[in-house]
Amino acid sequence: MHSTSNVYVGVIGGRICSREIGKTAFETGRLIAEQGWILVCGGMGGVMEKACEGSFTSGGITLGILPGNCRKDGNPFLSYSIVTGLAEFRNSIVVKNCNGLIAISGSHGTLSEIAFANLFNIPVVGINTWELPGLETGERRLNIKKADTPQEAVKLLKSFLK
Amino acid sequence: MHSTSNVYVGVIGGRICSREIGKTAFETGRLIAEQGWILVCGGMGGVMEKACEGSFTSGGITLGILPGNCRKDGNPFLSYSIVTGLAEFRNSIVVKNCNGLIAISGSHGTLSEIAFANLFNIPVVGINTWELPGLETGERRLNIKKADTPQEAVKLLKSFLK
Amino acid sequence: MHSTSNVYVGVIGGRICSREIGKTAFETGRLIAEQGWILVCGGMGGVMEKACEGSFTSGGITLGILPGNCRKDGNPFLSYSIVTGLAEFRNSIVVKNCNGLIAISGSHGTLSEIAFANLFNIPVVGINTWELPGLETGERRLNIKKADTPQEAVKLLKSFLK
Amino acid sequence: MHSTSNVYVGVIGGRICSREIGKTAFETGRLIAEQGWILVCGGMGGVMEKACEGSFTSGGITLGILPGNCRKDGNPFLSYSIVTGLAEFRNSIVVKNCNGLIAISGSHGTLSEIAFANLFNIPVVGINTWELPGLETGERRLNIKKADTPQEAVKLLKSFLK
Repeated sequence: MHSTSNVYVGVIGGRICSREIGKTAFETGRLIAEQGWILVCGGMGGVMEKACEGSFTSGGITLGILPGNCRKDGNPFLSYSIVTGLAEFRNSIVVKNCNGLIAISGSHGTLSEIAFANLFNIPVVGINTWELPGLETGERRLNIKKADTPQEAVKLLKSFLK
Repeated sequence: MHSTSNVYVGVIGGRICSREIGKTAFETGRLIAEQGWILVCGGMGGVMEKACEGSFTSGGITLGILPGNCRKDGNPFLSYSIVTGLAEFRNSIVVKNCNGLIAISGSHGTLSEIAFANLFNIPVVGINTWELPGLETGERRLNIKKADTPQEAVKLLKSFLK
Repeated sequence: MHSTSNVYVGVIGGRICSREIGKTAFETGRLIAEQGWILVCGGMGGVMEKACEGSFTSGGITLGILPGNCRKDGNPFLSYSIVTGLAEFRNSIVVKNCNGLIAISGSHGTLSEIAFANLFNIPVVGINTWELPGLETGERRLNIKKADTPQEAVKLLKSFLK
Repeated sequence: MHSTSNVYVGVIGGRICSREIGKTAFETGRLIAEQGWILVCGGMGGVMEKACEGSFTSGGITLGILPGNCRKDGNPFLSYSIVTGLAEFRNSIVVKNCNGLIAISGSHGTLSEIAFANLFNIPVVGINTWELPGLETGERRLNIKKADTPQEAVKLLKSFLK
């Protein structure tokens, strides 16, 4: 199947995460595979690894866009990995490769990705992540839809991708 | 004087701005020149141009790190400009070249820069820009100090740079 | 299969090519698929497209690392594509993702890739491409092994990858 | 003076160089300052440092576009430095910021820069560097003018910049 007929969905979040967030990421990955979507991520540990594990072990395809120059730094659940040597610059590449994104928890790196997604008009659904309720007016609005569960996140994202 | 003895201060904000925000940016640039700091910015219009005008016309040095490949796209108040051809990737370069940043208004591009500044532990003072009052607890805290005027912003930043 | 157990082989060359060079690229791609190697390229037309066609139509996996921001700009024989928005900067990413490279014809962009491959100590086999016979001494030696046919190129590369 | 009225000339070459090559680089930098040109380079040691020293100590302006994230890694003769964190990707930025380039000796990194200069149609004069005499026909021609001395290199470059 040609690369442009695929749907690419990103999962963004921290390199280190709690057990609970890890379960959420795993389940999100599993549901992404179930939809037949390709999972794109930064290829490292934490939320990225658990999401990849959920997808990969369910037969899904996972792509990791790594910050470093060494493919072995990627998590063990990547179908294909791309090394970039771009450090934080690769955040923008992760984002622009996706039809939509699911942000799970995460810190400032994740916020930079949400900002780029908004800049590129790519929809983002967030679970337990950055939200800016005080800013829902005026020009500085962070466009991110809130979901409480992986099921809800995937359902919401699906509605945006139609 | 050697490049490492200089203090580099960034001004970030939108390419288009209101007259009022423009006045704030101009005054901020003027005060940066007064401090003997080098003004770093993305080199384009709006907040960037007005800040450069304020600094340049007061005898300050201004550096523009442009997103495109053509030096002529830069605003007319740049002492030196660097073309990158990196589009949004250059946001991170603007940030990492600064000892501290002043954010004035701005939208999602500016938010990506604030996120990177937080990631790199570079202090940011904001005037009429992104703030996340509901997030001042836990891991997802946007570190940005609020100022109401250019004078206050420069004073605050000076205290961080000491 | 995990991404690090794969062998990634790049095919580099011009976006436009003669019918004869196109045949060489196609056959090279076909042989790469036969080896079970993943074909990496810049994802565009010419040599890249013909190599992808040869591999893809033989059941191989092809990855295109595109210079622009639009996945649809990629050639029609890509299993997966990565958009970068990095223009010529992506040349270095193509190179560093490969265990070895086959250069077919090509111009200055291809030369930049051969230079980076040499910088990163990645083996390059060339068919009808840059060679610098006068420079085989001293520090400025371009390390590129010459092959006359796709068969010979793949055989040579295989010996380097062992 | 506005940034676009300046002439930016790059000096490219290795991070380590012999004493003799260093003298050539120093003299080239001195002549660049004499012309009132801004010297652009990668900001590190070797040829870059000696060229900067020649220019800086003659009152010229020198800009270093550094591969790393730390301004202190730059050589001590930079008027202004830009950190990029882009490693080898910054080679292309050095090139595109110049109206013309002088290559002095150098290895594969320098070759990548000459290739990019050719790709961008930026003139290059070389002293004791890559030359491809066997390739002066056909599509794969490396456009680089040969000079034997800094005086000759600057004179040649001046004729191209007119």
